Amino acid sequence: MALEAIRSGERNEAGIAAVLRLLGARFGPRVQTGQDMRAQHAHSTTYIPAQLPDGVVFPETAGEVCEIVALASAHRVPLIAFGTGSSLEGHINAPHGGISVDLGRMDRVLSVNTGDLDCTVEPGVTREALNTYLRDTGLFFPIDPGANASIGGMASTRASGTNAVRYGTMKDNVLALTVVTAGGKEIRTAHRAKKSSAGYDLTRLFVGAEGTLGIITSVTLRLQGIPETIAGGVCPFPSISDACNAVMLTIQSGIPVARIELLDALQMKASNAYSGLNFAELPTLFLEFHGSPDSVALQSKQFAEIAADFGGGAFLWTANAQERATLWKARHNAYWAQKSLAPGLAILSTDVCVPISRLADCVEATQADILAHGLIAPIVGHAGDGNFHVGLLFDDKDTADVARAEDFVARLNDRALAMDGTCTGEHGIGQGKMPFLEAELGGALDLMRQVKRGLDPDNIFNPGKIFSL
Amino acid sequence: MALEAIRSGERNEAGIAAVLRLLGARFGPRVQTGQDMRAQHAHSTTYIPAQLPDGVVFPETAGEVCEIVALASAHRVPLIAFGTGSSLEGHINAPHGGISVDLGRMDRVLSVNTGDLDCTVEPGVTREALNTYLRDTGLFFPIDPGANASIGGMASTRASGTNAVRYGTMKDNVLALTVVTAGGKEIRTAHRAKKSSAGYDLTRLFVGAEGTLGIITSVTLRLQGIPETIAGGVCPFPSISDACNAVMLTIQSGIPVARIELLDALQMKASNAYSGLNFAELPTLFLEFHGSPDSVALQSKQFAEIAADFGGGAFLWTANAQERATLWKARHNAYWAQKSLAPGLAILSTDVCVPISRLADCVEATQADILAHGLIAPIVGHAGDGNFHVGLLFDDKDTADVARAEDFVARLNDRALAMDGTCTGEHGIGQGKMPFLEAELGGALDLMRQVKRGLDPDNIFNPGKIFSL
Repeated sequence: MALEAIRSGERNEAGIAAVLRLLGARFGPRVQTGQDMRAQHAHSTTYIPAQLPDGVVFPETAGEVCEIVALASAHRVPLIAFGTGSSLEGHINAPHGGISVDLGRMDRVLSVNTGDLDCTVEPGVTREALNTYLRDTGLFFPIDPGANASIGGMASTRASGTNAVRYGTMKDNVLALTVVTAGGKEIRTAHRAKKSSAGYDLTRLFVGAEGTLGIITSVTLRLQGIPETIAGGVCPFPSISDACNAVMLTIQSGIPVARIELLDALQMKASNAYSGLNFAELPTLFLEFHGSPDSVALQSKQFAEIAADFGGGAFLWTANAQERATLWKARHNAYWAQKSLAPGLAILSTDVCVPISRLADCVEATQADILAHGLIAPIVGHAGDGNFHVGLLFDDKDTADVARAEDFVARLNDRALAMDGTCTGEHGIGQGKMPFLEAELGGALDLMRQVKRGLDPDNIFNPGKIFSL
Repeated sequence: MALEAIRSGERNEAGIAAVLRLLGARFGPRVQTGQDMRAQHAHSTTYIPAQLPDGVVFPETAGEVCEIVALASAHRVPLIAFGTGSSLEGHINAPHGGISVDLGRMDRVLSVNTGDLDCTVEPGVTREALNTYLRDTGLFFPIDPGANASIGGMASTRASGTNAVRYGTMKDNVLALTVVTAGGKEIRTAHRAKKSSAGYDLTRLFVGAEGTLGIITSVTLRLQGIPETIAGGVCPFPSISDACNAVMLTIQSGIPVARIELLDALQMKASNAYSGLNFAELPTLFLEFHGSPDSVALQSKQFAEIAADFGGGAFLWTANAQERATLWKARHNAYWAQKSLAPGLAILSTDVCVPISRLADCVEATQADILAHGLIAPIVGHAGDGNFHVGLLFDDKDTADVARAEDFVARLNDRALAMDGTCTGEHGIGQGKMPFLEAELGGALDLMRQVKRGLDPDNIFNPGKIFSL
């Protein structure tokens, strides 16, 4: 059961009190202990119950993060790095209490190197703020997890999203980090060269470490040129299997789709109702193409041919920005459309990822499971990566319904693992997926524990996440 | 001085003797201790003096690797994983003695999943053998470091090469590994999903770890569709700076070049002489384009326009395979052309990598240094990545010349680091680059040491490489 993982752990009461006192003396009003502020730093867009930190500190510089970490190290007090709180698996909860380190005030863009297609930002910069900042340079940062997350948080959860199929995930787009490690020393994992073979890949070790190995103080990112043309398209299919086969052949053919999203029939029905659309209520692919006008036209034509081979219906596409927004409305409003299916209920948004050849099997078996258990759970997938999300509607106040939801999640994860997949393609482990990591990686968890013990011997960085020590 | 790093260390004589005896009893003729065999497993294509292992063992299965590691763990005896011996910085030397584990007999392709564009191979499969095996599937493995290296070795050194500009490095193309870790247990770092956020990125931790954390027993790789058309092109430029500016604009424009290589004037002169060509003896770019016939024609046209803006001479290009081989002959024979400049001398092949905006500065300053010190050292660069190689000709029997070579390497690395670069883009640290890693990453080395101590507490895996403990 997922929620078993989040029971509160032991608390170092004396240490927490001492650190709060010392932080208060040092940072004054930039340390907050009010109930509302603490609740804001534990509550997130997750189904997992909140576990509040004892206080929140707002550093403004990397030097201040060093001071905070040094204090916490000396007193063995947990530090939970906080970006915008948009993580989904309980990453920002404080099961052992401690201090939430809110990096939202470290929101400066430190440098942009247009010639090298890179930039360096503080961790609190959000992806939307970064792209606004970059607009005049002709460059953009492509990773789009949906939420307007912070770059530090996106690095920490190895985020990706709709256009990872073309541009990769945070793993592929972080060139270097600075990180404050145990004891309070800031280190640099790499420099700005596009590639390096200089020692262990510490950059990739911190990307996805969910704040359990240190606190990120800057992120150097790869950027992309803003495409000359962006085209959008929508195509319904008779079955999930047909849609997934079209996706697989699209990828195999090397068509560089920028996004290729699968919405199942229930999601389409919800989206039609919520957004006043009249799409066929069938499994549907939403596509986006980036390139020159000729290139997006060619890509669209190639995709249309593949879609037709798999029984795809009319392929609507457009290179006009406004028409594209209209076409994509169902995808953009997917979450709110899910909510509208049962306005009183909570949504458990969970993700798994399987090899693309198994995506249809995994989605269809999941739909059968949803039907068999009388659940309401639309499916939206980043089909080009074999990654999909189930938005399970459930009553988070009803113990029996919570248990049903957890059982569903367990079956979903078992199914993905049995298909050579992973229990999370992009949300991370946090607390919610802890029960499944052992089944997925077995003995490799011992290596993760060895790394954690080596780098964070006092277990101060986001304890109680990813694995138990 | 680079070579200071390779002094022989302490030897565990009793342990080595015991392990050789036990291995002999277990593996019979698959353990060899003859001088020639040992020399073959220390000698490599490097300028660094050989340090021979005490014996060589040839496992044929992952289970046998587990047995070997368990024995070595019990007796605290070094194990040096060996692929084909094509590494360049002393990676396969045995400064503390011990056993070379030759993985050449573990050369099976375990599975190919055409629908998922992936395959799983044993570590001893070479990249050429893999591509021969794959030919009928329409897929290929793109990473090409020049040598016909083993996949396990390429993973361990985070190899890349000429077409990394399009397809990335080993970091980007390894999906999962199995690795035998200290004590002799085999673990799996990930499964076949295209992406995952499930815990620490152990895959990327082992990629580039140079065999210091465990022995790789299988590698799951991403594959690519064989391009419909491959076109090649060659274009001379008035200066390094003009050539590099053309490269930078090509990358910025999003032209998906598959290879974009820079040869300096001395290299062109050497290549003309060696291969009987008559190219202008100017800085020259060699390009390759992958795609449909229309796409490669368009890419070539776009590049030609950029080249013209930077004073490029006639841009020769062809989509005919035989003509392309002729055009690219100068690049393919670059190493042998370097050798022919001074047939009696050895070649020190060293690499650095800088942000692409600094590539011209770094190459020009290096040429000035070569001139000022009366050295012979042609330059070949993977210009799209800001990565270049210097082939320094020197007399490896002459102490003074060796010292001059080492001083040159030290200045080259200092120069790259001062430009926000790295002391190695693709060769790895091994022994040769150990003196520069501290300057490059400072405090981050302590984290690497903590990881090493955690995962290899008895320091049995390739000791004396990357950093001193």
